[in-house]
Amino acid sequence: MGHSEGRLDEREQQVWRTFHRMRNQLALALGQSLQQDSGISESDFEVLAALADAPDQTMRARALRTELHWEKSRLAHQIRRMEQRGLVAREVCVDDQRAPLVRLTETGRDTIRSAAPAHAARVRELFLDALTPDQLDALHQANAKVLARLHRNCPAETP
Amino acid sequence: MGHSEGRLDEREQQVWRTFHRMRNQLALALGQSLQQDSGISESDFEVLAALADAPDQTMRARALRTELHWEKSRLAHQIRRMEQRGLVAREVCVDDQRAPLVRLTETGRDTIRSAAPAHAARVRELFLDALTPDQLDALHQANAKVLARLHRNCPAETP
Repeated sequence: MGHSEGRLDEREQQVWRTFHRMRNQLALALGQSLQQDSGISESDFEVLAALADAPDQTMRARALRTELHWEKSRLAHQIRRMEQRGLVAREVCVDDQRAPLVRLTETGRDTIRSAAPAHAARVRELFLDALTPDQLDALHQANAKVLARLHRNCPAETP
Repeated sequence: MGHSEGRLDEREQQVWRTFHRMRNQLALALGQSLQQDSGISESDFEVLAALADAPDQTMRARALRTELHWEKSRLAHQIRRMEQRGLVAREVCVDDQRAPLVRLTETGRDTIRSAAPAHAARVRELFLDALTPDQLDALHQANAKVLARLHRNCPAETP
């Protein structure tokens, strides 16, 4: 490993903390905007966006979980609450009763359609436009490399 | 703005989605390791680490919220559950009863001490070591710029 096992040095801590803070603060800012503009959370938005992109706007709960990379309990809780608000509907799949289907409702479709433009503008304002094109490329390359490392590390995570 | 308002172009989407996936997958992987190695969640770890760094290992709930950049309801819920497990204790502050203090307990201190080395090793393995020193610098610079933009955008967020 070449480092003192189990402790980040000063530079490593700086890099990690900045990433971590940025991640948390960006999530908070985007979440607050979504709430204000559209009455939904970032988690609601993630689920709605994934379903809106899926064929028949329907996904198995398991596929949704793989797509979003959430803990099972988090997704179950989230889906239950979204169902209560009429944003999604659950259906038992005839082929496999243990793998319920989650479907976007008409309310859910209207919600994501009206929320998406303001959210995209906010992502651009707070994240994309903060960087020069070169910085954006460098950031993207680095993020893609970390993502590749994560996939190598958890092959079972990919469907 | 110079872009078509309210829609990300293909490149913007690619950059945003890669960041977003990386963020979610890294959080999931780190969370699973913490759970396995130490029986705590990433949220538990964040609270314990913030308190461990604070003078007297005690913080006002409000300061903790500013430090972590969480929604108020999320922090309240988290602190309640951590109190039940004996990781933190809440104390009413004599000066200002509306601003409760959160204190690290001995159990909390033991937990963060035993969790930190494995967590640091995992952060290095999945994140820091995935990148060359130049890429790490570029990533850090970009993240710091986004963070600065977020601060400019929400001056009320800083204490």
